[in-house]
Amino acid sequence: MRRAIALSLDMMRAGRGGPFGAIVVKDNQIIGEGYNKVTSTQDPTAHAEIVAIREACRTLGSFSLSGCEIYTSCEPCPMCLSAIYWARLERLYFANTRTDAAAIGFDDEKIYKEIGKPLADQRIPTTQLLAEEGTAAFREWEDKADKVPY
Amino acid sequence: MRRAIALSLDMMRAGRGGPFGAIVVKDNQIIGEGYNKVTSTQDPTAHAEIVAIREACRTLGSFSLSGCEIYTSCEPCPMCLSAIYWARLERLYFANTRTDAAAIGFDDEKIYKEIGKPLADQRIPTTQLLAEEGTAAFREWEDKADKVPY
Repeated sequence: MRRAIALSLDMMRAGRGGPFGAIVVKDNQIIGEGYNKVTSTQDPTAHAEIVAIREACRTLGSFSLSGCEIYTSCEPCPMCLSAIYWARLERLYFANTRTDAAAIGFDDEKIYKEIGKPLADQRIPTTQLLAEEGTAAFREWEDKADKVPY
Repeated sequence: MRRAIALSLDMMRAGRGGPFGAIVVKDNQIIGEGYNKVTSTQDPTAHAEIVAIREACRTLGSFSLSGCEIYTSCEPCPMCLSAIYWARLERLYFANTRTDAAAIGFDDEKIYKEIGKPLADQRIPTTQLLAEEGTAAFREWEDKADKVPY
C-alpha cells in the first residue's frame, strides 16, 4: 500500500493527473503499477486501477488476474471496481474512501448513485434502438464453436 | 447504430472478442469506433465502449466528450457506463440489454448487483489500510495551485 500511496503523491506532484495510485500483486511481487493519467494523456478511462490492471495483464499475458490482489490509494470508482471484477482479482485493499474522494471534488460517489438507478432515471438520457438487429450478434455468439469466453 | 452492430458482428466473427461494438458521434460524424478486444489483446478493460471513448478522446485531443453521443450494440456494463459518465458523454443509445447479455453468459448484470452492495457485502474481500498515510495526497491536491480538475 505504501507503494500505491507513493505513486499517488509523486505523480500528482509531477502533474500527471489526480492523486491516485494502484499496484497489482501476485505472489508478493508487483506485476503492474498505475497512477491517474486522465489529464496528461487525455483519456478519461486512465484511472490508476485501470492502468495497473492493464499493465499486470501485459505482464502475465492474460486477461485474467485470478490469484492476484490490488492495492489502491483510494476506494475504486464504479468503473474501476467493475474492472476489478472483470479482471477476476481476488482481493482489494484501499486507503482513502469514496467519501474522501467526493470531499476533494471527484465524482465517484455521484456516479455510484447514478448507475445504481434504472437507466430511465439516470442523468444521461438513454434510448434503445434496433433491438431486433442487435440480437443477431448475440445469437451467433451462442452458437460460435471457437469462441473464447471471458 | 447500424455501424455499432456491424462492428459487433464482424469483429466477433474475426475472433477479436465478445459480440459488442460501439461508436462515438459528434455533429453527426463518427469520431471513435470500438469493438470488444478482451481476449485478442489480453485486456479485460478493452470493452467496445472503452475502446471507442479512448479513440474519440484521441481524435479530439481532450478527456471530455461533452457534446458527443455514444451508440453501443449492448447496454453498457457498469465499467463502461461509469466511463461514459467520466467522459461527459451526453446521450447513450443501445440495442441489446444487460439481460440479453446475461442470457448469453456475460457477467454485466452480476457485476451491477455486486457493486450496488456495501463493500463489506461484496464477493471480492476488501480491506482498508493506511488511511492516515493515504490522506496526505488528497490534502495536497486540495491546495495544489496548478491542478487540472476533471
